[in-house]
Amino acid sequence: MTLRRCPRFISLEGGEGAGKSTVRDVLAERLRATGREVVATREPGGTPLAEQIRALLLDPAHEAPAPETELLLMFAARAQHVRETVLPALERGAWVLSDRFTDASHAYQGAARGGDAALIAILERAVVGIEPGLTLLLDVPVEVGLARARRRGEADRIESEQEAFFERVREGYRARAAAAPDRIRTVDASRPQADVASAALAVLEDYLARVPA
Amino acid sequence: MTLRRCPRFISLEGGEGAGKSTVRDVLAERLRATGREVVATREPGGTPLAEQIRALLLDPAHEAPAPETELLLMFAARAQHVRETVLPALERGAWVLSDRFTDASHAYQGAARGGDAALIAILERAVVGIEPGLTLLLDVPVEVGLARARRRGEADRIESEQEAFFERVREGYRARAAAAPDRIRTVDASRPQADVASAALAVLEDYLARVPA
Repeated sequence: MTLRRCPRFISLEGGEGAGKSTVRDVLAERLRATGREVVATREPGGTPLAEQIRALLLDPAHEAPAPETELLLMFAARAQHVRETVLPALERGAWVLSDRFTDASHAYQGAARGGDAALIAILERAVVGIEPGLTLLLDVPVEVGLARARRRGEADRIESEQEAFFERVREGYRARAAAAPDRIRTVDASRPQADVASAALAVLEDYLARVPA
Repeated sequence: MTLRRCPRFISLEGGEGAGKSTVRDVLAERLRATGREVVATREPGGTPLAEQIRALLLDPAHEAPAPETELLLMFAARAQHVRETVLPALERGAWVLSDRFTDASHAYQGAARGGDAALIAILERAVVGIEPGLTLLLDVPVEVGLARARRRGEADRIESEQEAFFERVREGYRARAAAAPDRIRTVDASRPQADVASAALAVLEDYLARVPA
């Protein structure tokens, strides 16, 4: 079973403080300005149940999840998100812009946390089944991204990891981009926010000129 | 990779109203009376985080989990339970008695819900890794068990399924027992509670006479 690529599905990926949700909203605004329906969503989350799973994942109040628990909770939330939000929107002709998707599990639970890459690939095929038509990887040096994230306020459980963890996340993402150059476009997100938005919009315009949807 | 069988680990399985937690407590009392340390636990649950996953699974307040979401949440809770509660207890020499374990996923998420049996087996090997030395299957006709469960009060999300679902659960359990007669012992749980407890205690005594622990 192979993954079904969905042309009207775009994901935003990158480490902490890369500016994913801001870029997602800029792209959503552009698409809406052309008369397209857009669903802006995020992972983990995107449905009431998946948002509650997100809260369990990021809340430092109870004991930390084991790496295997974290991986399965991420895919549980994703399975729900795909079925309740992403697929229904795509099927009615809307565009879906998601702050993170499965690439994030390859980078965080796989490359950074040392999770079983074969198991991640099995879960992706068995319970996700789809991939975005376009993924924007907002690449930023770890220290720059973390400084931005810290200015946003208190860190959640994953944001509290050490810098070496985020270096592995970044390398994981860059390896994904190198392996799927037809889907993943890398944007230098170390620049000022307006420049990052412009670069992301240029990628979107180029994609719209090519995509059949 | 094969499953590691743990002699001091006993699971109680069966449908709704089979009397699992009562029998678990009777067996725990007997083992404690012989000077053994016993950890009585349950699934989904058995750690603070896993109990919160249980609450998400059984709470009818938010949207129902998709079958794939339910399966992954069950195994997420189990991965946490194994690492935080079951293995630490076994490693210090305690006995662990669990109201449900992986057989329940084969019966509920597999046989009854139609989940992918191959995926369940992959998850069992990849994130659980162990199986009980002894499993007591408390077998009871569906209508008898449901009548007992209803006398306990309000039904949770899974207890609210139709009878045909619970017939498939029962068949799933019986197929598991037929396939693993050296591990799974079936007890007729349609009888009065005292008789079920006596039968379960007899199975335990027989097991203790054979087990090397």
